[in-house]
Amino acid sequence: MLDFDKFFMQEALKLAKTAFEEDEVPVGAVVAYGNKIVGKGYNQVEKLNDPTAHAEILAITAACNLLGSKYLDKCTLYVTLEPCMMCTGAIREAQIQKVVFAATDSSHRKSAPNLFEIQGGLLEAEASELIKTFFKRKRL
Amino acid sequence: MLDFDKFFMQEALKLAKTAFEEDEVPVGAVVAYGNKIVGKGYNQVEKLNDPTAHAEILAITAACNLLGSKYLDKCTLYVTLEPCMMCTGAIREAQIQKVVFAATDSSHRKSAPNLFEIQGGLLEAEASELIKTFFKRKRL
Repeated sequence: MLDFDKFFMQEALKLAKTAFEEDEVPVGAVVAYGNKIVGKGYNQVEKLNDPTAHAEILAITAACNLLGSKYLDKCTLYVTLEPCMMCTGAIREAQIQKVVFAATDSSHRKSAPNLFEIQGGLLEAEASELIKTFFKRKRL
Repeated sequence: MLDFDKFFMQEALKLAKTAFEEDEVPVGAVVAYGNKIVGKGYNQVEKLNDPTAHAEILAITAACNLLGSKYLDKCTLYVTLEPCMMCTGAIREAQIQKVVFAATDSSHRKSAPNLFEIQGGLLEAEASELIKTFFKRKRL
């Protein structure tokens, strides 16, 4: 284990403590690029009244903003709790190279269960055509 | 099929067209509560340089903001493309009741592949303790 790993996780833990003090589920995250922190975030779901405001999402958004890139493919995300489904998806979208987490999500902040109904195909032709046209134009 | 469904999806399509005009992958989303739209979003990944700025995430954040609630459990999300993993997770976190999508995500905007390494357990005790303390305090 590199010492950097421990340092970055300690920074994530400090952020988790800030969340704790603000009465949020205490999760903190940092995005590291080489030996530098390029994004920080802590859970702000309550404060922002936003179920998407998880530590990882905020840290990814901050890092992309700082680096001026929508991809973080040379970055590592350090997070104090195992990422939920949304954050795992965000990590993939951002093409983050590596994720290091502290606590496993056994009983803490489990991914919300899949309770919603889903129905596909409404106005499919129009929506699909729009996207096909977009990518066709991109390939020209 | 209710006419409302078609109306809301048409609104989502209008948003997708706005994305198209702004040279973004054309995806639009609306959150409906009863017969009202309470949140709108269109893909702004390029403009915001943010891989989390999918239509659904922006629409969910907007709806929570308007309704003053972190849960959208009586709401339906209409989106012009089948949600990716991140957005599916966000839908779950927001406890959205129903999702209606138009195009299937066959070849358009697939969920990014899972390419990252993952490692758990670094400073687990501290992170886990913080979360346990938080929830213990909540139950008092």
